[in-house]
Amino acid sequence: MLPRVTSIAGLPTPALVVDTTALAHNLDTMSAALPGARLRPHVKAHKCTSLAKEQARRGHLHFTAATPREIVGMAHAGLGDDLLLANECVEPARLRALADCPARVTVAVDSDETVDAAAANGIREVLVDVNVYLPRCGCRPEDAPRLADRARAAGLDVRGVMGYEGHAVLIADRAEREAKTVHAMERLARVAEAVGGGLVSAGGTGTYDLNTAATEIQAGSYALMDGDYCKLDIPFRRALAIVATVIHTNDRWTVADCGLKAMGMDHGNPSVDDADVLFVSDEHLTFTPHTSVHVGDRVLVWPAHIDPTIAYHERLHLADSLDLDATIIETWSVDLRGWDAVGANRGS
Amino acid sequence: MLPRVTSIAGLPTPALVVDTTALAHNLDTMSAALPGARLRPHVKAHKCTSLAKEQARRGHLHFTAATPREIVGMAHAGLGDDLLLANECVEPARLRALADCPARVTVAVDSDETVDAAAANGIREVLVDVNVYLPRCGCRPEDAPRLADRARAAGLDVRGVMGYEGHAVLIADRAEREAKTVHAMERLARVAEAVGGGLVSAGGTGTYDLNTAATEIQAGSYALMDGDYCKLDIPFRRALAIVATVIHTNDRWTVADCGLKAMGMDHGNPSVDDADVLFVSDEHLTFTPHTSVHVGDRVLVWPAHIDPTIAYHERLHLADSLDLDATIIETWSVDLRGWDAVGANRGS
Repeated sequence: MLPRVTSIAGLPTPALVVDTTALAHNLDTMSAALPGARLRPHVKAHKCTSLAKEQARRGHLHFTAATPREIVGMAHAGLGDDLLLANECVEPARLRALADCPARVTVAVDSDETVDAAAANGIREVLVDVNVYLPRCGCRPEDAPRLADRARAAGLDVRGVMGYEGHAVLIADRAEREAKTVHAMERLARVAEAVGGGLVSAGGTGTYDLNTAATEIQAGSYALMDGDYCKLDIPFRRALAIVATVIHTNDRWTVADCGLKAMGMDHGNPSVDDADVLFVSDEHLTFTPHTSVHVGDRVLVWPAHIDPTIAYHERLHLADSLDLDATIIETWSVDLRGWDAVGANRGS
Repeated sequence: MLPRVTSIAGLPTPALVVDTTALAHNLDTMSAALPGARLRPHVKAHKCTSLAKEQARRGHLHFTAATPREIVGMAHAGLGDDLLLANECVEPARLRALADCPARVTVAVDSDETVDAAAANGIREVLVDVNVYLPRCGCRPEDAPRLADRARAAGLDVRGVMGYEGHAVLIADRAEREAKTVHAMERLARVAEAVGGGLVSAGGTGTYDLNTAATEIQAGSYALMDGDYCKLDIPFRRALAIVATVIHTNDRWTVADCGLKAMGMDHGNPSVDDADVLFVSDEHLTFTPHTSVHVGDRVLVWPAHIDPTIAYHERLHLADSLDLDATIIETWSVDLRGWDAVGANRGS
């Protein structure tokens, strides 16, 4: 049992807090732009079935995931209408777990090995993952029809193609972002025709309104946003912060109890309003506030990249604003963390 | 229940694997250099009571921790002979949890607020944390005697001082590392005399044999080591890797299923033997191997910084070497993760 707290400033720190007003704005704005199945929300950023239920309540019943654990967790939370593992997997036990979970599950394939592993382990539906210039997964475009044939010959239903323009989603200049997206989607559209199946799954938060070629957009970060996405000209608001407690202050710097184990650092340091961040240690953030702060004060820390930040935390605390005296309305479990997909109890 | 696996290559990935031969070498080498209470192993890097028991078995019965949760977890695992929270805490409920746990607990203080909070919430023993040039916690040296008096007047037993030369521990040049350590410890020794109590707690893996002024050394990384510490002239060996599965390969790059949520990135990219790492995404590592690899192959990934790496994982798998066909001997829980210290069941 955790102690009951009533306000953000009463939380044991570090803790993740969600602004429900901003979250609702983000979810509603996206639903208006991409209603129903036009959006296939990606759960990898939030890893939270309670948040996914808010997305489902707005009409998005098809979801994207990055790990088998996320798929199994979504299925057991009753969100299994149409789940896409937008990632490659060759492990028999995990593929079996996907095949056996109470959901419609589609798996990305981009090689003979991934097609064969899917077919051998009970998977029924696949998308052919096509490289659209991001140097990561995805087959060469010219390989896609052959892989689709191989999949169909093995008894798999090929629902279409996917391709992630991840090299474009964070480009600050809108025209350049659009040009790179169009270029990537021209490749994907050509392949989609040859592969068949109808689905063209692509896109992310940064390209949600630029990618008009895809039949569905896999955006996920839009729900909570982060430092990097907030630099773009998109209508979503920062909805997630880390609350930390000041544990030391002197005339040159201040330290809060929120460090490398509370936030992803791949996009650089977090930010603190009215302060300059100096550096981050395992359990400490050293910064210079521009206003007076005292030991015991709470501060809000804005992580540069939410995905690897949330993955460190067990829960999200919801308040109707990110004022320190805002009331905690509800607490959600970050229940899709880790990688256990086989045999683990994922009941919601 | 997780599936039983017999070799590193049979683990669901990403997974942390520990080389027990290197671990034993590291633990034995450190115990020979700093026997018994000369070493107060820091548990923040490994966050694992099973590993702490190996340290205790070699005669180190006093431990250092960075969070109240680590302290409470160590106490409930039967490792509570003498636990130091080498960090500041002002939260009443957590200080009460420390005071109530079945252990001798000493807490660092560096301000009026931290002294008063300790005294008001049942803490019995403190160390005065002194700034020794790392811009983080620790009082000014001239404040330490006054804080010690304040603590004693409030009924606290002042066991001595601590000061962390964290700005020195990773300096590659040994002479410069030593000079910065000596400079820091000269300051701490002066304060120690004025504060009294006898304990002078300091040091880390990089300065374990250079810091001769401290009565006890708080090293932790030496047990498993990491990319940055391995660049130093110290006799400890890399004992921790992440095993990942190759899920995509082409004639220009290869992708394994191990990303930003499986490793700390504050010290930069991880490394892969015989390969160049290109970039890391949420669940992917893109690299160019110098040898032929195939989809389904396993690779070992060496994290640049182990502390925020281990904090992402639920368990450590032990093998007697880091060959992919090495047998898994045992699996340890990373049971000191997160920050819940109050009311959580931390029984071992």
